[in-house]
Order: sequence, then C-alpha cells, then structure tokens
Amino acid sequence: MPAANDSASSRETREAIMEATFRALSEHGYTDLRVRDIGEEFEKSRTLIHYHFDGKHDLISAFLEYLVEQYEDQPDIDAEADPWATLEARIEQCLFGPELGADFDHWERMTVYHELFSQAQHHERHRELFTEHYAVLRENVATVLRAGIEQGAFRDVDVDDVAQLLTDVIHAARARKISLGHDDAPEQARRAVVEHVFPTLEPEDGTA
Amino acid sequence: MPAANDSASSRETREAIMEATFRALSEHGYTDLRVRDIGEEFEKSRTLIHYHFDGKHDLISAFLEYLVEQYEDQPDIDAEADPWATLEARIEQCLFGPELGADFDHWERMTVYHELFSQAQHHERHRELFTEHYAVLRENVATVLRAGIEQGAFRDVDVDDVAQLLTDVIHAARARKISLGHDDAPEQARRAVVEHVFPTLEPEDGTA
Repeated sequence: MPAANDSASSRETREAIMEATFRALSEHGYTDLRVRDIGEEFEKSRTLIHYHFDGKHDLISAFLEYLVEQYEDQPDIDAEADPWATLEARIEQCLFGPELGADFDHWERMTVYHELFSQAQHHERHRELFTEHYAVLRENVATVLRAGIEQGAFRDVDVDDVAQLLTDVIHAARARKISLGHDDAPEQARRAVVEHVFPTLEPEDGTA
Repeated sequence: MPAANDSASSRETREAIMEATFRALSEHGYTDLRVRDIGEEFEKSRTLIHYHFDGKHDLISAFLEYLVEQYEDQPDIDAEADPWATLEARIEQCLFGPELGADFDHWERMTVYHELFSQAQHHERHRELFTEHYAVLRENVATVLRAGIEQGAFRDVDVDDVAQLLTDVIHAARARKISLGHDDAPEQARRAVVEHVFPTLEPEDGTA
C-alpha cells in the first residue's frame, strides 16, 4: 500500500474509494460484500482500488478508520460557554448527528457503523478501532465534565463512569432506531438523560 | 408446520432442534448458516428438522422466540421485598444472566442474541420479536418501579422513560463486552446506574 508520495490526487482517490465502499456497504451489507461491489460504485478504474488496498479486509478497516474520524472532530471547549449547554450539545450531536452538510447522511453511516460494531468480535483490527473510537467519544464527554467540575457547575463525579454511561445510552438508542425502527429512541434517550442522569451531576449544595 | 398434536415427544424434538440451532449459530454465525449446519448439530434424523420447520428463516425465527423466552421468565414481585433491592436484582439479572444452571451459558446466548439484533432491520419478524421482547424487559423493570412508587420508596417518575433508560444501558454494556471484549462493561454499567440514575428515583423529601 503506497503512502510515501501521498499527493492531493492520491488523497482524493482514496476518499473516492472510501465513499464507494460506504455506498457498497449500505447496499450489500458487510458479510456479503465483495471488492467487485465496491468497484461498481467507483467511477474510475477498479485497478486503482487494488493499487491502494490489499483486498476486502484492508479496505473495510480503512473505511472504518475513515468513518469514525468523521465523528471524532468536535469543536473545542469554549471556556466561556455554560458547561450544561455544552454537555447537552455534545450528547445531541452524538444522538442526532454532526452538522456536516446536506449530503452527509448520519443514519446511513450509523447503520454501517453499527453493523461493523456487531461483527467486531471476529476482527481484531476492527475491535481495536472501535475501542479507540469509544475512548475518543468518552474523552470528548469527559473533557466537558472536567471543565464543568473545575468551574463548580458539576459535582466532583467519577468522570470516566459518567462519560461511559452517557456513551452507552447514546449507542443503545441509535441501535434501537437502526435495528428495530424505534425512531423516537434518540429523543427518548436525550429526555431520560436530562431527567435521570443530569440531576446527579448538580453540585451537592444545589447552587448550580 | 404441525402444531395440533403437540405431544411431549414432539416438544422434546423441537427443543433439541432449538439447541442444535443455538450451537450451529454460535459456531457459524447467522449470515453463513445453512440448515445443513444445524443438522450436523442434531442427534436425530435431519428430516425431522424439515418436518418441524419451513427452512432456515422459519427455524431462526422460532429460535429467536425460544431464546428470548428464556430471558422473560422473572420471579413475581414480592410485595414484602424492598423495592430498591428488587430493582437492583432485576438489573443484575439482565446484566449478568439468570441463574438457570451450569449448562446455561448466558454469554454465548447473548452473543447470538446481539448478532440477530444487529441484523433485525433486514427481517420484519425478528424486528417484531425484539420489539415485543424489549417491551417485556421494560415492563419487568416498570413493574418494580410502579410497586416502589406505590410504597413511597421511589419518586413519582415517568416509569416508561426510566425503564427504557435502564434497558438501554444494559443492552449497550452487553454489546461492548461481546463485540469489543470489554469484560468490565456490565460491572461498570451497574455501578454507574446505582451512582447516577438511582438518586433521581429517591423521593423528593429524601425519606427513602
């Protein structure tokens, strides 16, 4: 896999292959996918796919990296912003998707993401990528919590446990929407978290 | 599919086919499974499988019904028992598995369960079965909450939202353990729920 001379055109080609992989995964699912299906979604010559990637597993691992990166870019914490509003905004972004433009279909991407997640026990590299990605998501929430504790807006909680709890609720709500068609799951999860987790973050003396 | 004369021996045969299906699913996964693989796990004649079930999809749907039933039997609510202890016991049973004997492998069954869940968007019948099963699980928790509210042990919360929140956390913790190998996920989820959801169930005046 050539990486040394990573010119702009090479990067564009790799991105076009990644988007072709996304469309092929959406259409055929992960288990039945063949490199040929990705080729059919790709405008240029199929030999370019073989030039950039060593077969299906290399392609899918690269795609998973590409996919999770789109969900890891988060705005910096604004030191002036209200920690409660920031926390709600982070949770909503994870539940309802980032604002990346009209052509970015959050739920189609999440459907592929959850399918790869559910098969990760069979693929060491996918398991590693998801574990790293979960650590990033958890850390994005933990950063908001730490800043809020510092400012006295939140109680001095176990930041990792709370961040993991919120990440788990988000994951399950998305999974119910995708697998079972429970379209109200993300909104219900948001409401339940605000009503039934947020109060345990308030400072003990109630002066939040 | 004959159901009229459901004799004891016929029931035993169906149960043996279900356990053969479980072993075959554990070994081959759902997507690649063939009825032949189930036949290889079945002691008796393969024609019995074809006598009882109309092909792979009918078999898998019947297996999913069989699987979820094993997780729906819950002891009745003891009116004398402490609602807090009962709630914790229900959550622990969902996270760590029911006590059904040494030959009942909770995590192998949950692995198959989560694989079928993640593919449910492609199968209307599976989606229905999971939706019904989730309603039962949620109702098992909701029943404990209602009894506790009645006794004044819990605040008058939105029972469905809280029961769904707890069910979602349980689902996600199991999914992380199975897909990513996070073996501490169920214990972390239990701790987070006790620390960060339970306090919002306490009566407003704090006399729980």
